Amino acid sequence: MAKASTTAPKTVADLGEFGLIERIRTRLPVGLDSRIVVPIGDDVAAFKPTPGKVQLATCDIQVEGRHFDLSYISAQELGRRSAAINLSDIAAMGGHPTFALVSLALPETTPLDWVDQLYVGINEELGRFEAAVVGGNVSGSDRETIIDITMLGEVEEGQVLTRGHARPGDAVLVTGTLGASLIGRLALEQGLDRDDDAIGRVVHRHATPTPRVHEGQAIAETRLATAMIDVSDGLAGDLGHLCEQSGVGVELVAAQIPIDDATLKIAALLGEDPLEAALHGGEDYELLITCPQAQSAALARTVGERTGTAVTEIGRVVAEPDMTLLLTDGSRRSLEPRGWDHFSRPGKP
Amino acid sequence: MAKASTTAPKTVADLGEFGLIERIRTRLPVGLDSRIVVPIGDDVAAFKPTPGKVQLATCDIQVEGRHFDLSYISAQELGRRSAAINLSDIAAMGGHPTFALVSLALPETTPLDWVDQLYVGINEELGRFEAAVVGGNVSGSDRETIIDITMLGEVEEGQVLTRGHARPGDAVLVTGTLGASLIGRLALEQGLDRDDDAIGRVVHRHATPTPRVHEGQAIAETRLATAMIDVSDGLAGDLGHLCEQSGVGVELVAAQIPIDDATLKIAALLGEDPLEAALHGGEDYELLITCPQAQSAALARTVGERTGTAVTEIGRVVAEPDMTLLLTDGSRRSLEPRGWDHFSRPGKP
Repeated sequence: MAKASTTAPKTVADLGEFGLIERIRTRLPVGLDSRIVVPIGDDVAAFKPTPGKVQLATCDIQVEGRHFDLSYISAQELGRRSAAINLSDIAAMGGHPTFALVSLALPETTPLDWVDQLYVGINEELGRFEAAVVGGNVSGSDRETIIDITMLGEVEEGQVLTRGHARPGDAVLVTGTLGASLIGRLALEQGLDRDDDAIGRVVHRHATPTPRVHEGQAIAETRLATAMIDVSDGLAGDLGHLCEQSGVGVELVAAQIPIDDATLKIAALLGEDPLEAALHGGEDYELLITCPQAQSAALARTVGERTGTAVTEIGRVVAEPDMTLLLTDGSRRSLEPRGWDHFSRPGKP
Repeated sequence: MAKASTTAPKTVADLGEFGLIERIRTRLPVGLDSRIVVPIGDDVAAFKPTPGKVQLATCDIQVEGRHFDLSYISAQELGRRSAAINLSDIAAMGGHPTFALVSLALPETTPLDWVDQLYVGINEELGRFEAAVVGGNVSGSDRETIIDITMLGEVEEGQVLTRGHARPGDAVLVTGTLGASLIGRLALEQGLDRDDDAIGRVVHRHATPTPRVHEGQAIAETRLATAMIDVSDGLAGDLGHLCEQSGVGVELVAAQIPIDDATLKIAALLGEDPLEAALHGGEDYELLITCPQAQSAALARTVGERTGTAVTEIGRVVAEPDMTLLLTDGSRRSLEPRGWDHFSRPGKP
């Protein structure tokens, strides 16, 4: 929220690579973490892992015009969103996020205030989960703004949750609600008024999604789940990944797929089908879980009690490697595992 | 060196994001590493760190037109180079590289064969040091090819070598020779014939630099060094970083700065000053070390015996925070800590 000084330097080109690195360094939280042996500013960051834990590592490259549009997402929102997307991957393993490295490619004209606000957002989102930036790298770029965050984390060895162990008969569950992110993005693209309560809610779900880190930890600690993945490519797309790696299929019940009131309302306003948004929209960053049918209610209850987040059963795992959707009229249709493809153009999810 | 099939798909757009990820996955070495708990292909990679070791993490974003030019670097060379740059940072801490995450932003027209060869290069360079790719991410981009590698590593806690502990009276040493990378880049830009022996040697130093990983480990294990950094921004630029963080200055002896015969020869051919290339060219990825004067010869001898790489004393650390260069005629000049700035245009080092 701080305004840039009206005196020079104003853009990243004014400051140069090393000036920008120094500026970023002074804006990071310091001295908070006894695990850090060498902080940002040396050749590499060095830290002590927790003895006995498995280390986790993931990265996500976000490209302007494909993953975000600077005309309707603020720098602070983009910072929070870029961190959240990676935190969500750590959450999908039941992990505890620890440290992040942030690589930026920025056009020379990028305002320094924009970079400052990006880090305000990154620090804010990481700080919610006691994680911190320990390293990074900046470069110029000709046209596109690119943010690549690598997120590290830890998990107990016995609690590592992959996509590969769903079994026929398992229940399929999902945290929170689906479809809001796509409807929020469409609302932004259409220039709808963010001050409206329902519009503001779906836009918030798109611009600053909530990574389900505490929910993922709670799920892993129950040791009831057989597989877990976060919903980044859409329910159908991510279920497709899970089914493929587990060698199973799935039957979903359309009426049980959780969609919130704001999403239903704004989808209607936009003439969009909220069920399609939930199935294929993606970027909701909810967690998709499988667990033995008999443990489904216990898992949902435990997560609800520990985090306040609803967990809803939406279908079951089957042996045949197909995905089907049971509609409210009793008919069935095949569910294509298509999601969002980042080699496609924006607007064609 | 393999040619792409003449049947479709030919470009990354033909295959799409998930097809490309699957193709990359099948081209990575598998089953080689008992430390990996979850390999590439899940939400995150998971691995077991070596008990008691400090973990290292670094990243480097390489942008087409700034860090490399696809018209004169092959995909395999670029893969090796991108890995080498990060390995060099791990080397500068005296570390052992472990795992890499590779983020790519690629224009839709990028040939699949090009991506395959990029990974051949990455795998080749990492494999030399028993490191491996465990994760990554791909996206389209409008115009520029961007490669961001995050490299993880490990080091004994007592052997962590930072930039911040050089002391007045210390000797300044450097591995190998300097200036070759800039002269090699200029030779490529001028379209000189790579088949010529001397040209081939400087081009090789630019296109596929050798990270001094074994040398860095040997230096750390002597426990004689007080500070270490790799020469990415140029001798003067990186000495500047080291002096600033150690709160010291430095006196270099121009005649002692090691420059190899091929660099001298091709610099003369290009009308360039090889000393300037050594001081400010950068991207040589040699290691710059400080150690107590009395231990300088022992350190150089140990590294030479263990790795075959020459280590040369080039000056000494002084208390006053200035950098000076002693010329062969006995005069002195101030040494500007300027190096390569990636917000500058190529061709203006």
